[in-house]
Amino acid sequence: MMSKSIFYHAGCPVCVSAEQDIINLIGTEKVEVVHLGDDSGRIAEAEAAGVKSVPALVTPQGNVLHINFGASMADVKG
Amino acid sequence: MMSKSIFYHAGCPVCVSAEQDIINLIGTEKVEVVHLGDDSGRIAEAEAAGVKSVPALVTPQGNVLHINFGASMADVKG
Repeated sequence: MMSKSIFYHAGCPVCVSAEQDIINLIGTEKVEVVHLGDDSGRIAEAEAAGVKSVPALVTPQGNVLHINFGASMADVKG
Repeated sequence: MMSKSIFYHAGCPVCVSAEQDIINLIGTEKVEVVHLGDDSGRIAEAEAAGVKSVPALVTPQGNVLHINFGASMADVKG
């Protein structure tokens, strides 16, 4: 089982703000941050996990929390 | 400054699922859970904090994270 959450974002202002909040809440050592704009090879992984928009947090249990709304995955894929 | 986050919800299935995820991530001692359906006296407080829909988490810094989408505040007020 994964022990870390994964925070997917795309660098938008909403994403960056949420990232700071999530890191403050959960702790930087408990969350992996993935920038899908810089690391587009992980878009498929994010979609497979159920991510529909960013920013989103995938929990260690595999649940997806869509946090606020920065951009749809369609926008991320450009 | 507040040291706890506040998780506002209204008992909907999306809310209950997100509540468990948030408690698992942040720790039960670090988050106050407010059920706006049972405790409608706190709806004004939630709206003043910037909550537009539930479930939502207000961080100790006062930022609002809208998590997934269960119901609008208009629905909560019925």
